[in-house]
Amino acid sequence: MPGSKPQTRFPDPQIEMAHGAGGKASRRLIQGLIAPVLGGPLLEPLGDAALVDIGGARVAFTADSFVVKPLRFPGGSIGDLAVNGTVNDLAVSGARPVALVVTLILESGLSSEVLEVELRAIAAAAEQAGVTVVGGDTKVVEHGMADGMYITTAGIGAVDPRAVCSPRLVRPGDRILLSGPIGDHGITILLARGEIDLESDLRSDTRPVYPMIEALIASVGAGVHWMRDPTRGGVASALNELAADARVCIALFEETVPVRDQVRGACEILGLEPMHIANEGQFLAVIAPEYAEQALDAVRSVAGGEEAVFIGEVRDAPARTVLSISAYGGTRVVDMLVGDPLPRIC
Amino acid sequence: MPGSKPQTRFPDPQIEMAHGAGGKASRRLIQGLIAPVLGGPLLEPLGDAALVDIGGARVAFTADSFVVKPLRFPGGSIGDLAVNGTVNDLAVSGARPVALVVTLILESGLSSEVLEVELRAIAAAAEQAGVTVVGGDTKVVEHGMADGMYITTAGIGAVDPRAVCSPRLVRPGDRILLSGPIGDHGITILLARGEIDLESDLRSDTRPVYPMIEALIASVGAGVHWMRDPTRGGVASALNELAADARVCIALFEETVPVRDQVRGACEILGLEPMHIANEGQFLAVIAPEYAEQALDAVRSVAGGEEAVFIGEVRDAPARTVLSISAYGGTRVVDMLVGDPLPRIC
Repeated sequence: MPGSKPQTRFPDPQIEMAHGAGGKASRRLIQGLIAPVLGGPLLEPLGDAALVDIGGARVAFTADSFVVKPLRFPGGSIGDLAVNGTVNDLAVSGARPVALVVTLILESGLSSEVLEVELRAIAAAAEQAGVTVVGGDTKVVEHGMADGMYITTAGIGAVDPRAVCSPRLVRPGDRILLSGPIGDHGITILLARGEIDLESDLRSDTRPVYPMIEALIASVGAGVHWMRDPTRGGVASALNELAADARVCIALFEETVPVRDQVRGACEILGLEPMHIANEGQFLAVIAPEYAEQALDAVRSVAGGEEAVFIGEVRDAPARTVLSISAYGGTRVVDMLVGDPLPRIC
Repeated sequence: MPGSKPQTRFPDPQIEMAHGAGGKASRRLIQGLIAPVLGGPLLEPLGDAALVDIGGARVAFTADSFVVKPLRFPGGSIGDLAVNGTVNDLAVSGARPVALVVTLILESGLSSEVLEVELRAIAAAAEQAGVTVVGGDTKVVEHGMADGMYITTAGIGAVDPRAVCSPRLVRPGDRILLSGPIGDHGITILLARGEIDLESDLRSDTRPVYPMIEALIASVGAGVHWMRDPTRGGVASALNELAADARVCIALFEETVPVRDQVRGACEILGLEPMHIANEGQFLAVIAPEYAEQALDAVRSVAGGEEAVFIGEVRDAPARTVLSISAYGGTRVVDMLVGDPLPRIC
């Protein structure tokens, strides 16, 4: 009914950390409150880019806020994440990243040197990703009303007509490609906070994934049915979203999922599932089976893509489910992330 | 020298509230630190939209963060501001606003009801402005690491080929058009905080200015040389930016600048200059003199534009200066805002 008040169904009385974690609570907030009010069908569930027709062109458009703690960590910093997170959302939407606008919320008292270091990180990451920073905005809040700095990056990209992705294209028999080892970013942040006492030379995987996706699209464009960068909530949440949206089963072959020993060790100590841990430089792609080998070759041919593997396949049933199947034949359901074991990961 | 470290010249050791206020300190931060590092010439000084060629189209692209305190105030709320602020940046760049992406930084413990009210404000303001919210992102930080909620809105628009604006087009004899009374927003926020004890029915002027600009461009497109929405730092800061960028003098006729009695009264009590106070629903335009009357008629013909007036003219000298000339012939220099008398105004 035009003009009627949209119906919401969000039972939680207040916002908790878990609503920002990318798992079940995030999906409840988005599907129950944000999407019904702001225009449901157009809002992608977890932050990929929207496609907008403008002036005769098809433009991918996205934005993400970054509140990672600490600001710097092995392998990167909030400035790197803010660029790579947004250009990766464009890339997995099948677009070539073109331009960014960067907005800063700064806490009064922040050292100018810390700010300059992050601005330089932004500039270097943008150069590496091949995008131009075309604008910005700066707000300052009182001491105690932020945590050093928060960064929001908005990005636009040119949609590649060779890449048409949608959960609707995903069908049984399709293969699940993963670009490299999972969990490096999330566990690096956890170690950087000193929350567990573990010697490690682990580094965040923050990087642009566009070079790998560009090679993939150039090689097998029509064979790419869906892509996603598994950030908050990890591979498990991204694939559960897909299983729900495409009404399929995603079957993973447990031993094929690449996890570094340090990530596995930290997860075992903390009772975490590596597939729930955030990544900032990996992507998942669903590939039509007839293109599978060619797709893998394309991604592996790119520097940084050498560890790409197939980790599973799409099946009919049980629909809306992600299963992990061990080499011994054991099967377990891999659910979305519940709660927020690793707050402020990006 | 390619690859060399960009030279910065930002003497302030730490970030203070004034760096976010839109006046002299903001310009020092942007010109001394942000623009040199992130790519100077492409960064518009104070937050108007950038124009980007993408897929054969010319797209206006902007983003702003909003940290206004309190979240709600007479005439609007942070949700209204977040939409109108961004669509107005597109409009004064000569673009029709098309789509927004909204990102939220929420403080853990925020009431879901407060969030829903702001989401509905965003939806209503977007509908009024004729833009679609196409995406979003939500982050949650711990209690005490934000102030309820901060909103960032990114916007894209279709550049109107009839409107080509630049400080380079501004020349002596051009007239300065203002769409309506100044200072309503800033003083409303100040009163809403209870910082002065004054009875008032003043309301924020938050609204989209595109309908007025659309009429202006349709009527006298080639006669519009420059536009800006005078938000943080007010009319004085916007015109000082113009005077500096175009190397001209802006002469204002003091009695023609519309200021409501309540705004004037509050400014007198507090020792503030109305031309330094933020507006969220007004715009300034520099109009070639031969189009002046037609331009004014066009803006006044739009609902909400009835109070538009000419407040001054462009002169040769003294260059880089804004002068205010009283009816009695007195002349004073109107400088940019210094310090931050009204923090977190938007």
